[in-house]
Amino acid sequence: MKIVIVGASGTMGSYLANALEKEHEIVRADRKKGDVQVDITSPEAIEKMYQKLGAFDALICTAGPTYVGPWKNLTDKEFRSGVEGKMMGQINLVLIGQHYINPKGSFTLITGALTHEPQKNFANASAANAAIEGFVRAAAIELENGIRINAVSPTVIENSPQYFPFFPGEMPVTMKQLEYGFRKSVFGANTGQVLKPY
Amino acid sequence: MKIVIVGASGTMGSYLANALEKEHEIVRADRKKGDVQVDITSPEAIEKMYQKLGAFDALICTAGPTYVGPWKNLTDKEFRSGVEGKMMGQINLVLIGQHYINPKGSFTLITGALTHEPQKNFANASAANAAIEGFVRAAAIELENGIRINAVSPTVIENSPQYFPFFPGEMPVTMKQLEYGFRKSVFGANTGQVLKPY
Ligand SMILES: NC(=O)c1ccc[n+]([C@@H]2O[C@H](COP(=O)([O-])OP(=O)(O)OC[C@H]3O[C@@H](n4cnc5c(N)ncnc54)[C@H](OP(=O)(O)O)[C@@H]3O)[C@@H](O)[C@H]2O)c1
Ligand SMILES: NC(=O)c1ccc[n+]([C@@H]2O[C@H](COP(=O)([O-])OP(=O)(O)OC[C@H]3O[C@@H](n4cnc5c(N)ncnc54)[C@H](OP(=O)(O)O)[C@@H]3O)[C@@H](O)[C@H]2O)c1
Repeated sequence: MKIVIVGASGTMGSYLANALEKEHEIVRADRKKGDVQVDITSPEAIEKMYQKLGAFDALICTAGPTYVGPWKNLTDKEFRSGVEGKMMGQINLVLIGQHYINPKGSFTLITGALTHEPQKNFANASAANAAIEGFVRAAAIELENGIRINAVSPTVIENSPQYFPFFPGEMPVTMKQLEYGFRKSVFGANTGQVLKPY
Repeated sequence: MKIVIVGASGTMGSYLANALEKEHEIVRADRKKGDVQVDITSPEAIEKMYQKLGAFDALICTAGPTYVGPWKNLTDKEFRSGVEGKMMGQINLVLIGQHYINPKGSFTLITGALTHEPQKNFANASAANAAIEGFVRAAAIELENGIRINAVSPTVIENSPQYFPFFPGEMPVTMKQLEYGFRKSVFGANTGQVLKPY
């Protein structure tokens, strides 16, 4: 299977790329590094990436920038970081990518537990995650040619200890659990699901 | 109680304004009509509205434009209708309005069953609704001075028969049920809730 991973240089993306490349052809996509470059905040850049890629079977996205910081500094301007990045960036990967992906292909997007379990400083991510989850459910009944779409929603992950202080009492998801979540979406038959790998 | 209703000329807004004006001071806000004018897609227009309004106790928003139409026509451009309208429009009403509302005041935003029960043609609303619901949960743990925030999420409403064909088998919410949903948010003690008045 030819699998594109957007955000492949990140904490989640690099782990998943290494785990899946033993059995599959992995294309690493990133803002600056990787096999192809893409800035997901630009629909034009996304279109160009797909033109370069050629046919593929699955797209995994672990790129999802958001504004993290004090509520008192949160205005329309900061909110755009998650709107253009994690939300519209991922939505445009699907709206454009549906015209390039192979029949029976799949899109797997990243969200997170903040959708339903908010934490201080992360309101922008709660909104962007929730938007992606609503979109995933809706896109699943619209996509044609057997194309599937799911989201993976972990809690804070094992390899991101820098976030632990912001998530008091949240049980970290191991990297192996995270991998299971993505495997369930890419290799299973589900569509329109928000997979919680814990 | 002084209650501002944004979208007061619409199907929901006009019903709620008429129902609540017997007991409360109602300020009708709309794009063109009403007591004050506001285009919620503009943060500047929102700021101006609040400056004109003076202190108030509750804001209800039933203005939430989205793109409705065939999936095949849905690109980044059409998606912006719900992003700027129903999503950022309502989020900015809160981010800006928190500096004007009275202590212990409340914001009540509009979403809809499409968050969890998608229908063809409405993917933009599913994403915008879900974003608002994620935001409401996050804002509830950040807002100060006892300010509360909730969303009301009805199915298709009784007074919108033009939408019935798009929602096969969906039991319409009566206008009275809708009113109960908003009353629960404005006059109750809840915060961070998505109220389903059915
Ligand atoms: N880490 C956690 O504990 C955790 C838990 C739940 C959910 N999440 C979510 O999971 C996602 C990934 O987390 P992570 O910890 O793996 O993040 P990360 O280590 O910061 O990696 C993010 C990756 O996305 C890329 N990227 C960022 N903005 C981009 C853009 N505009 N266009 C293309 N690529 C872009 C980055 O590339 P550059 O190096 O070029 O910036 C990097 O490869 C985030 O959305 C986060 O909210 C994380
Ligand atoms: N109707 C239903 O069955 C139903 C069910 C579930 C959820 N909803 C949601 O509930 C909301 C309201 O529905 P409705 O049927 O009452 O809608 P509606 O009859 O179309 O009324 C919408 C109101 O919002 C105003 N508005 C639109 N865009 C605006 C903007 N940019 N700035 C300020 N005001 C604006 C409209 O003013 P103008 O006249 O100037 O445009 C109008 O007063 C929508 O978000 C809809 O998705 C509806």
